[in-house]
Amino acid sequence: MKSVNVGLCGLGTVGGGTYRVLRDNQAQISARAGFPINITHIGMRTVKEGYDYTGITVSQDLLEVTIDPNVDVVVELIGGYDLAKEIVMSAIENGKHVVTANKALIAVHGNEIFAAASKKGVTVNFEAAVAGGIPIIKAMREGLVANKVTSLAGIINGTGNFILTEMRDKGRAFEDVLKEAQELGYAEADPTFDVEGIDAAHKLTILASIAFGMPLQFEKAYTEGISKITAQDVNYAEELGYRIKHLGVAVKRENGIEMRVHPTLIPEKSLIANVNGVLNAVLVNCDAVGQTMYSGAGAGDTATASSVIADIVDVARLVGTNARPVPHLGFGEIDDSIEILDVDQSETGFYLRIEVSDKVGVMAKIAQIMSENAINIEAILQKEPAEDAKTLPVIMLTHKVKEQDMNTAIKKLEALDDVVEPVVRIRVEHLNG
Amino acid sequence: MKSVNVGLCGLGTVGGGTYRVLRDNQAQISARAGFPINITHIGMRTVKEGYDYTGITVSQDLLEVTIDPNVDVVVELIGGYDLAKEIVMSAIENGKHVVTANKALIAVHGNEIFAAASKKGVTVNFEAAVAGGIPIIKAMREGLVANKVTSLAGIINGTGNFILTEMRDKGRAFEDVLKEAQELGYAEADPTFDVEGIDAAHKLTILASIAFGMPLQFEKAYTEGISKITAQDVNYAEELGYRIKHLGVAVKRENGIEMRVHPTLIPEKSLIANVNGVLNAVLVNCDAVGQTMYSGAGAGDTATASSVIADIVDVARLVGTNARPVPHLGFGEIDDSIEILDVDQSETGFYLRIEVSDKVGVMAKIAQIMSENAINIEAILQKEPAEDAKTLPVIMLTHKVKEQDMNTAIKKLEALDDVVEPVVRIRVEHLNG
Ligand SMILES: NC(=O)c1ccc[n+]([C@@H]2O[C@H](COP(=O)([O-])OP(=O)(O)OC[C@H]3O[C@@H](n4cnc5c(N)ncnc54)[C@H](OP(=O)(O)O)[C@@H]3O)[C@@H](O)[C@H]2O)c1
Ligand SMILES: NC(=O)c1ccc[n+]([C@@H]2O[C@H](COP(=O)([O-])OP(=O)(O)OC[C@H]3O[C@@H](n4cnc5c(N)ncnc54)[C@H](OP(=O)(O)O)[C@@H]3O)[C@@H](O)[C@H]2O)c1
Repeated sequence: MKSVNVGLCGLGTVGGGTYRVLRDNQAQISARAGFPINITHIGMRTVKEGYDYTGITVSQDLLEVTIDPNVDVVVELIGGYDLAKEIVMSAIENGKHVVTANKALIAVHGNEIFAAASKKGVTVNFEAAVAGGIPIIKAMREGLVANKVTSLAGIINGTGNFILTEMRDKGRAFEDVLKEAQELGYAEADPTFDVEGIDAAHKLTILASIAFGMPLQFEKAYTEGISKITAQDVNYAEELGYRIKHLGVAVKRENGIEMRVHPTLIPEKSLIANVNGVLNAVLVNCDAVGQTMYSGAGAGDTATASSVIADIVDVARLVGTNARPVPHLGFGEIDDSIEILDVDQSETGFYLRIEVSDKVGVMAKIAQIMSENAINIEAILQKEPAEDAKTLPVIMLTHKVKEQDMNTAIKKLEALDDVVEPVVRIRVEHLNG
Repeated sequence: MKSVNVGLCGLGTVGGGTYRVLRDNQAQISARAGFPINITHIGMRTVKEGYDYTGITVSQDLLEVTIDPNVDVVVELIGGYDLAKEIVMSAIENGKHVVTANKALIAVHGNEIFAAASKKGVTVNFEAAVAGGIPIIKAMREGLVANKVTSLAGIINGTGNFILTEMRDKGRAFEDVLKEAQELGYAEADPTFDVEGIDAAHKLTILASIAFGMPLQFEKAYTEGISKITAQDVNYAEELGYRIKHLGVAVKRENGIEMRVHPTLIPEKSLIANVNGVLNAVLVNCDAVGQTMYSGAGAGDTATASSVIADIVDVARLVGTNARPVPHLGFGEIDDSIEILDVDQSETGFYLRIEVSDKVGVMAKIAQIMSENAINIEAILQKEPAEDAKTLPVIMLTHKVKEQDMNTAIKKLEALDDVVEPVVRIRVEHLNG
């Protein structure tokens, strides 16, 4: 069968990994696909050493790749918005299938890109954009096609999970572990995208659209980072039988979809609570199959290349055929009437740490405020004050409550004379439906 | 777009689930597929009540379904070998795509079935045959297409996992939990297929062929059940930091493939050790992506239907097109020169329980036998004898050793006067490569 020709744009971490895996596993990949896959063109602004470019056209103007008649599939691996988008749109315009690992691009410009691709009859695949090497997009778009998704939750930023895992295992402080993560090359010099949840929100945006068949709406994702999590809260959570993970969560409610990224207490017995270090995992709750979970490497050169190449093979199967492709977001028609709920409408349990002056009667006042706001308490930890401390923490787990009711209660708690610091609150999820 | 018509053979647990999910989620499934999917024909030997057969042809001769020109995809859900095979072969002969959940049929007759299908240009899909609702076949054939698989391990029988989980959590005996599993409907009246590992060996055979691109060779799978596992061994394993799971394991070695089903100690910290109850999970170790794991419901009416319907949608996409289908076993060409290694060539760690008479000197003799056979001991648990017992157990964990060397050592151990019972041995896997 005719070979399928690939044009790579970008030869950085993922681009280099893709080159190497395609080269090292060429025989196996061709055997699996049923036809050979060749790189025929690479675009990069500075020509990298250490690669064999025999038989490969090299362009420093990356757009050249997208107009090369000898390229069937354009692979965008430069990242960012501007040139990346130009490359993808030009490839589509020229009737080529596209593969990208660029979550930021898809989360922000995906609707426009998919519309252009569908109009032109080509496919844009983006498995590597979410959870790196885990075939989660394929599982959700194809494997779970029979199901209505009720909710999903993912550990979808490896840096954040590494930091929280170290904090728990070794009692270390956030800043300390972050510094190590940067030294190890897990976290960028500017770690904001990772630790403040923006990267996770890009990925959650994509997962939620595929789960519920709605347009990508990154701007409506609620995003909260992990930089304020303390070793103390990690410990108290542990005492209560929970772990703190940075989760992207999407939940279907009667009136819309919750879409939020935030630190979350989850029961230590749940499988996903045991996904540690830089690993990623996504669990999906569905009506027919129940809960399935997918875990593995969320980043790394060859791990991400694994997904890029799977996408290449998938679109390569379409080249020169009249096949019916899998719709970009997994639905033939997207429902733009589905509402993304404001975070204060969301429903979760809460972990609260309330620093109080050691006074008789404060517990009664707290309990009264909770009860007035119809918040049910599931567990309380009362700690002895430290030797010389004038205050002591009251730790509480609540049952599920609407966030706006919790906001009201917290305002009242903070107004109490006996409550001496802003209340610390972390959401709690049981992830079982 | 033209609708795709499905003919169901069998309306039992999975058939009924498939009917119901296709009916309840019809709008969603059509939206996801991009075209409507209808059941137009059902074959069943006794017509079941409680179903609406409007617009559906009902046949009590199941082969009628396979020759109906109004059926595009034939779904075999009766199980067993004889009629099931006839149905599948007749459907292929009549140019129809096939979906089946029948692991026994695929493991034993898959080579013949796939050859016939490829010749006829149709596809036989079988996602539900392994790990029920988990899209593991799709992940391995498509999602991991770029990778060389180095090994895989799966909890692929829910009944067995339920029994082992209960034994560990509640210290119950095997027979006792098995009885409950039968009452709960998890285990068949004749539980042999489940607890003796035959069902798991069917599934492992399929997974291993997809992992390594070799013909299905069920007869070469080594199969050992869990019926001899005692609560005592479960406890000692726990003390050593391990859990006992019934695993299907396939490992690539220089000279061939290990393919074996047996009870296995795995480190309690590994994610798959925490897959409990009736849940299934498969982990796959690969060169590019590293380790990924997939978990979820391995059985149940609608959970299994989820995979059956995903398969239906996949083959439905091929109907009336010249698309390049995914090869049945994930490889365009199957390598029948790959050897399946005899189990005594396999390499694992071992857990040994050696009952000895309480005599000074026996430990030295044991250690000498181990050392003579180049077996390295990783950990030893020595227990005090029970009040009135004349013997006491010595528990050992060994490093990786070739099974034939362990056999030799065990023979020598059992020949010692001080060793008063056959040595209990359970394999140990660390699952990390
Ligand atoms: N790294 C991962 O593990 C991972 C995982 C999942 C997804 N992704 C996504 O994959 C994409 C690539 O990430 P990466 O980690 O491979 O990044 P990277 O190592 O920084 O590589 C990016 C490459 O693109 C080139 N490039 C960037 N901007 C360019 C421009 N304006 N013109 C020409 N070339 C340009 C860079 O060229 P120079 O070398 O000349 O600067 C570099 O070689 C991103 O969208 C990222 O989000 C990465
Ligand atoms: N149950 C699960 O969770 C599960 C999970 C994964 C895969 N599977 C596989 O799915 C397949 C079906 O399993 P199941 O649990 O649905 O079995 P089931 O409940 O026993 O249903 C089988 C159906 O096939 C019919 N049937 C059996 N032999 C027949 C014959 N010779 N002629 C006509 N009809 C016949 C039976 O009809 P009657 O009602 O008239 O007896 C019954 O309705 C099996 O291959 C099984 O291994 C099952």
